[in-house]
Amino acid sequence: MMGIPTHGMVRLTPYTERLKGGAVNAKAEPAVDVRAPSLAIVDGRNGLGPVVANVALETAMQMVAETGIAYVGCHSSNHLGALVPYALKACEAGYLMMAGTGASTTMPPFGGSEARIGNNPLCIAAPCPAAPHFVLDMAMSVAARGKIRAAHAEGRSIPEGWAVDADGQPTTDPARALDGFLIAVGGHKGSGLSMAVDILSDVLSGARFLTGITTWTGNNTTAQDLGHFFLLIDPARLIGKDRFNEAMNEFQGIVLSTPPADPGMPVMLPGEREQSLLQESKAKGVPISEKTLAEVRVLAGG
Amino acid sequence: MMGIPTHGMVRLTPYTERLKGGAVNAKAEPAVDVRAPSLAIVDGRNGLGPVVANVALETAMQMVAETGIAYVGCHSSNHLGALVPYALKACEAGYLMMAGTGASTTMPPFGGSEARIGNNPLCIAAPCPAAPHFVLDMAMSVAARGKIRAAHAEGRSIPEGWAVDADGQPTTDPARALDGFLIAVGGHKGSGLSMAVDILSDVLSGARFLTGITTWTGNNTTAQDLGHFFLLIDPARLIGKDRFNEAMNEFQGIVLSTPPADPGMPVMLPGEREQSLLQESKAKGVPISEKTLAEVRVLAGG
Repeated sequence: MMGIPTHGMVRLTPYTERLKGGAVNAKAEPAVDVRAPSLAIVDGRNGLGPVVANVALETAMQMVAETGIAYVGCHSSNHLGALVPYALKACEAGYLMMAGTGASTTMPPFGGSEARIGNNPLCIAAPCPAAPHFVLDMAMSVAARGKIRAAHAEGRSIPEGWAVDADGQPTTDPARALDGFLIAVGGHKGSGLSMAVDILSDVLSGARFLTGITTWTGNNTTAQDLGHFFLLIDPARLIGKDRFNEAMNEFQGIVLSTPPADPGMPVMLPGEREQSLLQESKAKGVPISEKTLAEVRVLAGG
Repeated sequence: MMGIPTHGMVRLTPYTERLKGGAVNAKAEPAVDVRAPSLAIVDGRNGLGPVVANVALETAMQMVAETGIAYVGCHSSNHLGALVPYALKACEAGYLMMAGTGASTTMPPFGGSEARIGNNPLCIAAPCPAAPHFVLDMAMSVAARGKIRAAHAEGRSIPEGWAVDADGQPTTDPARALDGFLIAVGGHKGSGLSMAVDILSDVLSGARFLTGITTWTGNNTTAQDLGHFFLLIDPARLIGKDRFNEAMNEFQGIVLSTPPADPGMPVMLPGEREQSLLQESKAKGVPISEKTLAEVRVLAGG
């Protein structure tokens, strides 16, 4: 619904296959270990990622309401989808959110020639009184692996600069790219940021990290023990709700009124496109590819 | 001492000139406003950035020792130098740190043609039992403005991809680049991350933000009202000190043992180079350019 087709209906089949194969436990009830008034760790008990992550986010929302700040980590979890929906939930409640998740290794660390870091996304979101909320959700590669997978499925080539093949050579062939590595955004910067998100999501919550995380692509029997984190701050407790809201209004105005480099392409705020598409999807529905629809029909038994 | 010459002795003259010109108050005593057991805002009272930032970091360290987590924002502050020294202080005490600072606008937001965002650095650091601590300190441009200023001072050209001129055209001329804009790392990603750091550092602590921040280059009379933030987490309160230390040892080992792309260039951890140079500088001293040394002699009155 937010124009992130790599994280939408296309995931229904692998999610279901992992449930059927026993890699993910459909009946898991995540357990919350409160470590301090603003700190908790959720044992996902190998449940579906969105189930575990929502327990973590709700725990963090209860804590931040009391103390003004909360960190909740998760372990023994699975792929949680995109981070934007969690961010919108936090923003609707008035909280600033930082969140991230571990992911299986798809990139070499800067200067390396073997995949040892994941494309671990980081989300930083701030509530705004007028739409859209500020929602930055960035993975650490130049392009998402899902986009390469989509190009492969549709028989398209990929742009230069997205990936290298297994020998570390640049490629525009999605098949060679899927056998190779994603390229980290900004070289050492994206590489370092991936590691930082890994520490915040996985190390700090006691989940697996770096090469300890197994891939879930085509793997329907092994648990991933994935980690996530949600860090919430209540701006009202720092400078007051009115003052924060005024500042965010002004912030939006300054960004959106920037003269565009291309007159036909106005400058947008991070997350603006996703939130606008969400409204559109609510009214008009969501486009789904024939291939995905056929897969969903198989899952539905007809 | 850490091989960051853009943030070292070269800043002594502008810092001093701003003190002399009244833009910065040498006698400021920052005031700490404790908003909750894990939240505080420091009014820097227009003191030197490192003075204000150290008050904030120390406040955060007292809070995290009690509650396991702390966010401390600053307003009415000034340029705080590089973030690495603060990170090392937090890591030595066993805490994970996220920190950032606002900066005057030097880049257009993604798709824009006017500077409305700063090169706001983000630092994420985690303590390690064996050197080096994990210290990622990244500004949001492909290259730092200080590097362009250094190239200009030394009459060198700059690599392509660092900056565009005032018309938005690529340039390798440092003078034209200084009149133009830095380029954000990863396009919309670096642009969005700059805004996120601005919100965390400036909006949340009540400082000026975006175009509200005036430049301090050549400005010795106007206060900047700059903001910073320090967010600390105690890993010992989450998964226990021993388990965290073991995980960070393993983390370092996995990254450092990655086969390098270039056999002569082993893969390094973020912050490894800076910490190694710090040890070297303690033994051998710090190289200072003739130009900077001459300036320091002028300041010293001889």
